[in-house]
Amino acid sequence: MEDKIKVAFQGEPGAYSEEAGYGYYDAMEMVPQESFEAVFEAVASGACESGLIPIENSLAGSIHHNYDLLLRHELHIVGEYLLRVRHCLISFPGVKQSEIKRVISQPQALGQCAGFLREMGVKTEPVYDTAGSVKMLKNSGERTTAAIASKRAAKIYEMQIIKESIEDNQENYTRFLALSKTPGTPEGEIKSSIVFTLKNIPGALFKALSVFALRDIDLTKIESRPLPGKSWEYLFYVDFIGAVGEETARRALDHLGEYALMVRVLGSYPIFRS
Amino acid sequence: MEDKIKVAFQGEPGAYSEEAGYGYYDAMEMVPQESFEAVFEAVASGACESGLIPIENSLAGSIHHNYDLLLRHELHIVGEYLLRVRHCLISFPGVKQSEIKRVISQPQALGQCAGFLREMGVKTEPVYDTAGSVKMLKNSGERTTAAIASKRAAKIYEMQIIKESIEDNQENYTRFLALSKTPGTPEGEIKSSIVFTLKNIPGALFKALSVFALRDIDLTKIESRPLPGKSWEYLFYVDFIGAVGEETARRALDHLGEYALMVRVLGSYPIFRS
Repeated sequence: MEDKIKVAFQGEPGAYSEEAGYGYYDAMEMVPQESFEAVFEAVASGACESGLIPIENSLAGSIHHNYDLLLRHELHIVGEYLLRVRHCLISFPGVKQSEIKRVISQPQALGQCAGFLREMGVKTEPVYDTAGSVKMLKNSGERTTAAIASKRAAKIYEMQIIKESIEDNQENYTRFLALSKTPGTPEGEIKSSIVFTLKNIPGALFKALSVFALRDIDLTKIESRPLPGKSWEYLFYVDFIGAVGEETARRALDHLGEYALMVRVLGSYPIFRS
Repeated sequence: MEDKIKVAFQGEPGAYSEEAGYGYYDAMEMVPQESFEAVFEAVASGACESGLIPIENSLAGSIHHNYDLLLRHELHIVGEYLLRVRHCLISFPGVKQSEIKRVISQPQALGQCAGFLREMGVKTEPVYDTAGSVKMLKNSGERTTAAIASKRAAKIYEMQIIKESIEDNQENYTRFLALSKTPGTPEGEIKSSIVFTLKNIPGALFKALSVFALRDIDLTKIESRPLPGKSWEYLFYVDFIGAVGEETARRALDHLGEYALMVRVLGSYPIFRS
C-alpha cells in the first residue's frame, strides 16, 4: 500500500521544519520550498496535500509573517506539533571535541549555544542556515571545524554528532501548524485558532474576552498586534479549547461578531500531546 | 558643553539598532555589543548610561529573549522608539541597477525584498548580517554585486544607495526600548510595561484584565506566552496607558496581585510619537 502524502516545508533538507514533519506525520514525503509563500502555494495548488509551518518559538515569539499568510490564503489548520529544538555539535566522523577550533552555524543557533561555545573556547562564524552549515562543512573537508544543526542534518550529510542538546536554554520549543485545503474532522481534545480585529476603544478587548469567559471557554493563547498603518486598530490571535462546530463555541463567535470588525476562523484541530 | 551619553546596542555599526539610536537620542555615542546579554551588562555595570534593544517587529513578532533578559536584570524601561525598517539596495559608487547580477544580505532582509529581487532577476546569497553584507561587499571589490542594509550602513562604508525602501511590505516597523539603571521620571502621555504570571485556570486571564477594565485603564499590548517547562503557567506581557505611580494604576496593580503569581513592573515612560 502506497499511502505517502506530500508535505511542503520551508528550508533545506535537515531543517528543523523537516524534523518536525518526521515527528508529526506517519508516512510522508517532505518537499522543500524556498519560502513560506511557496509552502502555501504548494498546498493551495494541490501540488502538496499538506504544509507544515512554524508559528511560534518559545524564545523568539510568534511569527507574524505566517499569520499574515494564513489570513491571505484560504487554507485550514488541521493539526499542531511542538518540537523541542535540540542543537547538535556536528563534525566529520572520528573527530574529537578537543580538536575543534571553529564552529559555524546560523547566528540565532550560535547565540542559543553561546555559553557552551564560550566554555569550548572556539571561534564562531555565522552562516545563513543551520542545515546549510553542515552542507558547507561537508564540502569544505575541514576536520577542525564543527557545525551546529539538527540531528537529522547530521544523518543526511553522514556526519558525526559530537554532542547533543548543547543549547544554553533547554526551554527551546517551536510550535508548528499543519495546513490543508480542506478543514479537518478532529476528534478527542480539540483546540481552535481564530484571528479578529477590534477598534482601539477602552474596554473593547475586555468585552471581546467576555464572550469566552461567560461561557467558561478556556483560552490557551492571546496576543495583540498593532496594525502599523492603522494605528487605531489591533489584530488579535486567540486559541481556545473546543471545536468551532460546537454549540457553545458557535454562540461565543456569534457574540464576538457584535464587537469585532472582522473574525476569521483558521481551524479546529486535535491538541498536541507529547 | 560635552553632554554625550554612551548607549549600548547589539550588532555592528550600521545595524538598524544603531539607526534607531540616532533617531531616539539627542547626543550620544553608540557602543556596539556582541549580544543582547552584553547590552544589559554594559548598562548594569555602568559602562554605558543607556541601552537600546528591539522588543518587537511588526512582521517577526515579540522578541521573548529580550523579555527574559528584562526579567533577569534589574534595569528600567525609560523610553520607546518605533523605527520604520527601510531596506536599501547598496553598491559601489557609480554602479547602475542594471549592472547588478547578485545581491547579498541577511536571509530575513532578502525575504522581505523577495518581490523586488525577483523583478530585478538577480541571484541572491544569504550572509549573516545586513550591515555585515555591506562590509563584505566593500572588501570584495565586486562591482556587479549589491547588498541590502540600512541607509546608515551605506554611509559608514561610503557606498552608494541605488534604491531606498525596496521591501515588499511597507508596514515593517521595529519597536525599541531604552533601558537605564534608574527609573525615568516621565512627563506628558505615559505608558507602562508589566509582566505577570497566572495559574492556567479557566477565567484567570479575564479576572486579571478586569483590574484594568474596571478602572478604565486602556491596554496597548497583551501577549500570552506559555512557560514550556511549566505547562500550566503562563507569562503575560501587558502595556497600559498611565504611570505606575498614579493612584489608579497603583490600585489596579494591587488588585492584579490578588490573582497573579508574580507581577513585575518593567517601567513607565513617555509614549512614542513620530
